[in-house]
Amino acid sequence: MKKFLDENFLLKNKTAEVLYHQYARSMPIIDYHCHLPQQQIAEDKNFENLSQIWLYGDHYKWRAMRANGINERFCTGNATDFEKFEQWAATVPYTLRNPLYHWTHLELQRYFDVHEILNPESSKRIYENCSEKLRTKEYSVKNLLRKMNVVAVCTTDDPIDNLYYHQQLKDQAFEIPVLPAFRPDVAMNVSDPSRFIAYVKKVEAASGISISNYTEYLDALKNRHDFFATMGCNVSDHGLEELYADDFTDAEIDSLFIKIYSGESLNLAEQRKFKSAMLLVFADWDFEKGWVQQFHLGALRNNNGRMLQTLGPDTGFDSIGDFKQGVALSAFLSKLDTKNRLAKTILYNLNPADNELFATMIGNFNDGSMAGKVQWGSGWWFLDQKDGMVKQMNALSNMGLLSKFVGMLTDSRSFLSFPRHEYFRRILCNLFGEEIENGELPNDIAWTGKVVQDICHYNAKNYFGY
Amino acid sequence: MKKFLDENFLLKNKTAEVLYHQYARSMPIIDYHCHLPQQQIAEDKNFENLSQIWLYGDHYKWRAMRANGINERFCTGNATDFEKFEQWAATVPYTLRNPLYHWTHLELQRYFDVHEILNPESSKRIYENCSEKLRTKEYSVKNLLRKMNVVAVCTTDDPIDNLYYHQQLKDQAFEIPVLPAFRPDVAMNVSDPSRFIAYVKKVEAASGISISNYTEYLDALKNRHDFFATMGCNVSDHGLEELYADDFTDAEIDSLFIKIYSGESLNLAEQRKFKSAMLLVFADWDFEKGWVQQFHLGALRNNNGRMLQTLGPDTGFDSIGDFKQGVALSAFLSKLDTKNRLAKTILYNLNPADNELFATMIGNFNDGSMAGKVQWGSGWWFLDQKDGMVKQMNALSNMGLLSKFVGMLTDSRSFLSFPRHEYFRRILCNLFGEEIENGELPNDIAWTGKVVQDICHYNAKNYFGY
Amino acid sequence: MKKFLDENFLLKNKTAEVLYHQYARSMPIIDYHCHLPQQQIAEDKNFENLSQIWLYGDHYKWRAMRANGINERFCTGNATDFEKFEQWAATVPYTLRNPLYHWTHLELQRYFDVHEILNPESSKRIYENCSEKLRTKEYSVKNLLRKMNVVAVCTTDDPIDNLYYHQQLKDQAFEIPVLPAFRPDVAMNVSDPSRFIAYVKKVEAASGISISNYTEYLDALKNRHDFFATMGCNVSDHGLEELYADDFTDAEIDSLFIKIYSGESLNLAEQRKFKSAMLLVFADWDFEKGWVQQFHLGALRNNNGRMLQTLGPDTGFDSIGDFKQGVALSAFLSKLDTKNRLAKTILYNLNPADNELFATMIGNFNDGSMAGKVQWGSGWWFLDQKDGMVKQMNALSNMGLLSKFVGMLTDSRSFLSFPRHEYFRRILCNLFGEEIENGELPNDIAWTGKVVQDICHYNAKNYFGY
Repeated sequence: MKKFLDENFLLKNKTAEVLYHQYARSMPIIDYHCHLPQQQIAEDKNFENLSQIWLYGDHYKWRAMRANGINERFCTGNATDFEKFEQWAATVPYTLRNPLYHWTHLELQRYFDVHEILNPESSKRIYENCSEKLRTKEYSVKNLLRKMNVVAVCTTDDPIDNLYYHQQLKDQAFEIPVLPAFRPDVAMNVSDPSRFIAYVKKVEAASGISISNYTEYLDALKNRHDFFATMGCNVSDHGLEELYADDFTDAEIDSLFIKIYSGESLNLAEQRKFKSAMLLVFADWDFEKGWVQQFHLGALRNNNGRMLQTLGPDTGFDSIGDFKQGVALSAFLSKLDTKNRLAKTILYNLNPADNELFATMIGNFNDGSMAGKVQWGSGWWFLDQKDGMVKQMNALSNMGLLSKFVGMLTDSRSFLSFPRHEYFRRILCNLFGEEIENGELPNDIAWTGKVVQDICHYNAKNYFGY
Repeated sequence: MKKFLDENFLLKNKTAEVLYHQYARSMPIIDYHCHLPQQQIAEDKNFENLSQIWLYGDHYKWRAMRANGINERFCTGNATDFEKFEQWAATVPYTLRNPLYHWTHLELQRYFDVHEILNPESSKRIYENCSEKLRTKEYSVKNLLRKMNVVAVCTTDDPIDNLYYHQQLKDQAFEIPVLPAFRPDVAMNVSDPSRFIAYVKKVEAASGISISNYTEYLDALKNRHDFFATMGCNVSDHGLEELYADDFTDAEIDSLFIKIYSGESLNLAEQRKFKSAMLLVFADWDFEKGWVQQFHLGALRNNNGRMLQTLGPDTGFDSIGDFKQGVALSAFLSKLDTKNRLAKTILYNLNPADNELFATMIGNFNDGSMAGKVQWGSGWWFLDQKDGMVKQMNALSNMGLLSKFVGMLTDSRSFLSFPRHEYFRRILCNLFGEEIENGELPNDIAWTGKVVQDICHYNAKNYFGY
Repeated sequence: MKKFLDENFLLKNKTAEVLYHQYARSMPIIDYHCHLPQQQIAEDKNFENLSQIWLYGDHYKWRAMRANGINERFCTGNATDFEKFEQWAATVPYTLRNPLYHWTHLELQRYFDVHEILNPESSKRIYENCSEKLRTKEYSVKNLLRKMNVVAVCTTDDPIDNLYYHQQLKDQAFEIPVLPAFRPDVAMNVSDPSRFIAYVKKVEAASGISISNYTEYLDALKNRHDFFATMGCNVSDHGLEELYADDFTDAEIDSLFIKIYSGESLNLAEQRKFKSAMLLVFADWDFEKGWVQQFHLGALRNNNGRMLQTLGPDTGFDSIGDFKQGVALSAFLSKLDTKNRLAKTILYNLNPADNELFATMIGNFNDGSMAGKVQWGSGWWFLDQKDGMVKQMNALSNMGLLSKFVGMLTDSRSFLSFPRHEYFRRILCNLFGEEIENGELPNDIAWTGKVVQDICHYNAKNYFGY
């Protein structure tokens, strides 16, 4: 009987333990894609209590609470912080086998040195203990990043963002680079004319370029892309149901812009054409600047119309979709590659039924120009747990080179999520450890340890150039 | 070397054994979805021999026999009962690793105390021994249910069914509730005008309401829905390739009804509209009465045209389809939820490639009003085996709350299928047992045992209100 | 700690060892589908060095090298053989967990008795040692087949092939039958009129039948089909994204032929009709002659437009697609079966998300006329590795009869690929071994050993009639 969550958590044999403790554990964390609020970093915020840092904005936990029959008042509503915490503590024992159970107790251990199980009995004790710590300087946001050995963070930002807090962080000379990422999802969302027009106005304001046609729209967005680059950005990101790679002519796109910008709706085929065109433009800019482009594909969002009305997006009502991915993804990448304009690219799928499609798609565009140019991203969102990671790493191993993988990222909104890197590393080391002890890999700890360190740190470091 | 199918079958460590033997094993069985023939229960039938209870109507076994090269005469044809049994016995040794192999020997052990392997050598001995027992009172249908500690059964019934035998069972005051479930698949099947018209006539007869338009058709079906409720029904069920959630107007549906009822065919788009409309109506009735609605999605049926002609449906020529599930399923549930008219719902997928889609879809509609309101059903049909169950439980664990799962059902036509609940429970206990001994869960047997009992019994009891 | 790749490689317990060493290992190999170049067999070629036999034409290795950042010059370019080998040797250590790592070292052991790990340090030594051996008579192509206990080989051939080398091999009375397989992919590829016309001319030339309409085209192809039969062919093969089973009339197909043969393009719907028609014709011929028809479904080919221009097809730029498979596959098989003209059939899927669809589809057409008439083929291409094989065998076990499986094939272009049969057999024996020792199967070694031998050899022998 192994103790729950002890030092050899998830490590099933001696070799896995050696790989983790001697090679993986001490590697610094490059969190190349997350949703941390830059303002809180710049202000080096201290949270008042465990609810504020843990439950505010965490739709993973809200979903679990709702499934446990907890009223919305305790999720996003006006219950007090401690009332919310109590409901969460009452839910935790029902999350057995969910990653939340592991994450919760890992976070309590790593940040707060709390080794108890969270449940209604321990709830108050843990809340008070951790909240007290959170109010000390040691638990300011910057110190939390330092505590976790984070050496770089990429946030996720709209082109219209002025990156005020990124600038502040630069001015503060904060030793951990906190860099923006260019995410123009809204810029190409042409499902609603009035929303699109309002957004174009904001792009005008942000860029100082007046926009009356598609060319000017691109000029203004390019201005933002350039600005992001001056702020250290070298990563873009796109969240899409599927890649769009429909055929179009420039003239068509010009007139589609005029159409929607005059308030007329585009039909679905027109919207796809427009998005197909813009994606190619963004990709071209990314290539030109040597950026890494990321595509998060396959979420079916905002499923619950009632809750979308009440709470807005990103509140726990998204799920995994079954969109067609293959043909368009291939066509998009090939269009860029044929022009020799394919940037470094990371593809993330949300539906694990697409794992092998993605694992093999990257191989079509790894052309020998550099190791691991096109990457298949780590298990994302709902797949960010042991099974999801194992399946991703196994498919990548079988169909590509695990050794060249840029590895883990948190994709999180929370400053307490960094133990997910530890989680990933333990799982990675265990995969190698088990195969070595089974005789499926040579007992070459030094080499395997080097590969482990590459996946945990050096591959990302080289890939992103930090 | 562990003995085949001994008392610790499928239990790989001590903790799993404790969880199964001390917590799961004695839980009564609520079989909330099956296809047992109510007449045989009401008549407390005794089967004459093992072929009649085992091979008549079991398309799982027929498929295995056909794949083994056994002539149809021994499956559905006019061979004698013992000849059929011999062919089945000759096939069993070739079913190694198929769930039939486990089910067969579990059923021999649990019902008949037969611990031999079934094969040509043991065939006659086993047949005679079991058949003799089957002819005794102890093996009457009701006693078989009692023997298995079944405490509730839901059959599957067409709205036109008069539920005669359900009434008989009530009159007999049989201590195990045998309740109907409302399955209106035929009522919304508008692929063939003459079949549809014939069905409408039957609804007229059953309801005593004359039907000349859509409103009257719904009135008559509602009358049946009400009648089912008086008979204790609180569950509906739908078997569909995919959910239909197309847009329509009431006027459209009115005229579609007139069209098909006058003998004219509906095109595919019209059929989808019609089905989309009816599904919403049924869902509304279910909500109103506090019923549980079930959707079995994704079967590709009647693939073999020749055998469909010869033998009709449900004879072993169905398979797993690859229909699109995400968008329509989401739209359907959201339409109901937006009106605050979403009943308790269980979604079953047949293609395991959709597992994660379903596992995450339920989370979009668990709104905190009760624990586990929207459920993802247990591995169904082809997935009703160890791998299928494990994958379903792992995905549910990772993306939802396994602890709130309503658990197993047989979905079977056979009175000998109840050990599938035991099978499920052993697998469940082993999942927990392995993670506890690996240090992935705390060694808290009391709590884990409670969760196990919830999944095996109490969650279903509360959910269905038995 | 088990030694890497020792005699019990992949065998995790004693029972697995017994099954492999006493039952599986000595079974002769029937390689019923591969891409070996018949000319090299007929000429009993000796390769000059390890690069020529290993790296020329192996797009698996090229893909790994490209992903490792190796320039194309060392894959398909004009670097020297040893330079290429050095780059491959430098890549191998980065292929940990990829099947290439296992295959590489298995092949070094089994063919060359080299037990070292290939890496930059051992590169030269291994290259020289193996190349020297390759130049000896013992390592001629025929002797390599003999060394591996191969007893039959099926190549893959276009209908226009004159099978010159197959005839030579017959004349030589080579004791290992090397038989052609009829693969008419190009014959039904009507995406490009000029290519199609050119092909029809070649069919004219090969058959000696002049072609001016569809009927004559079929006559000429039938002539080739008959010719292949005289050369011992009894297998056809098709590589398709998906099965085509659209409705059509003979008159339509006649005029589509005239249309394209006069240089006019067919639209996509017309192309599908044409392919639907031809597939039924080929299937009919296969049935008539008692052949086995094979369908390889689901590859998304030639993704990289730039490299397709440069290197042509089959150079490592293909991947797994997400095409719809269910409905058309079912319709196609049912059309044939309804006429009682369904030949023995093997279905292969490339996307593992379709595993269960295929596993259940075969069951719809196993009609008892013979054991295992419709087969689900072994893990193919990207799935031809441990995980892929295990998933295929588990799904087949759960949803069909593993015991009737015709088992492994190499699908390879290399004479060094035959240890993949050993790989498959070890995995198979381990599946049985683990379940026997876990008590999930009876400890009946004789019976399980017989089933293992059937899967490794006798099922294929009976199925193909060798």
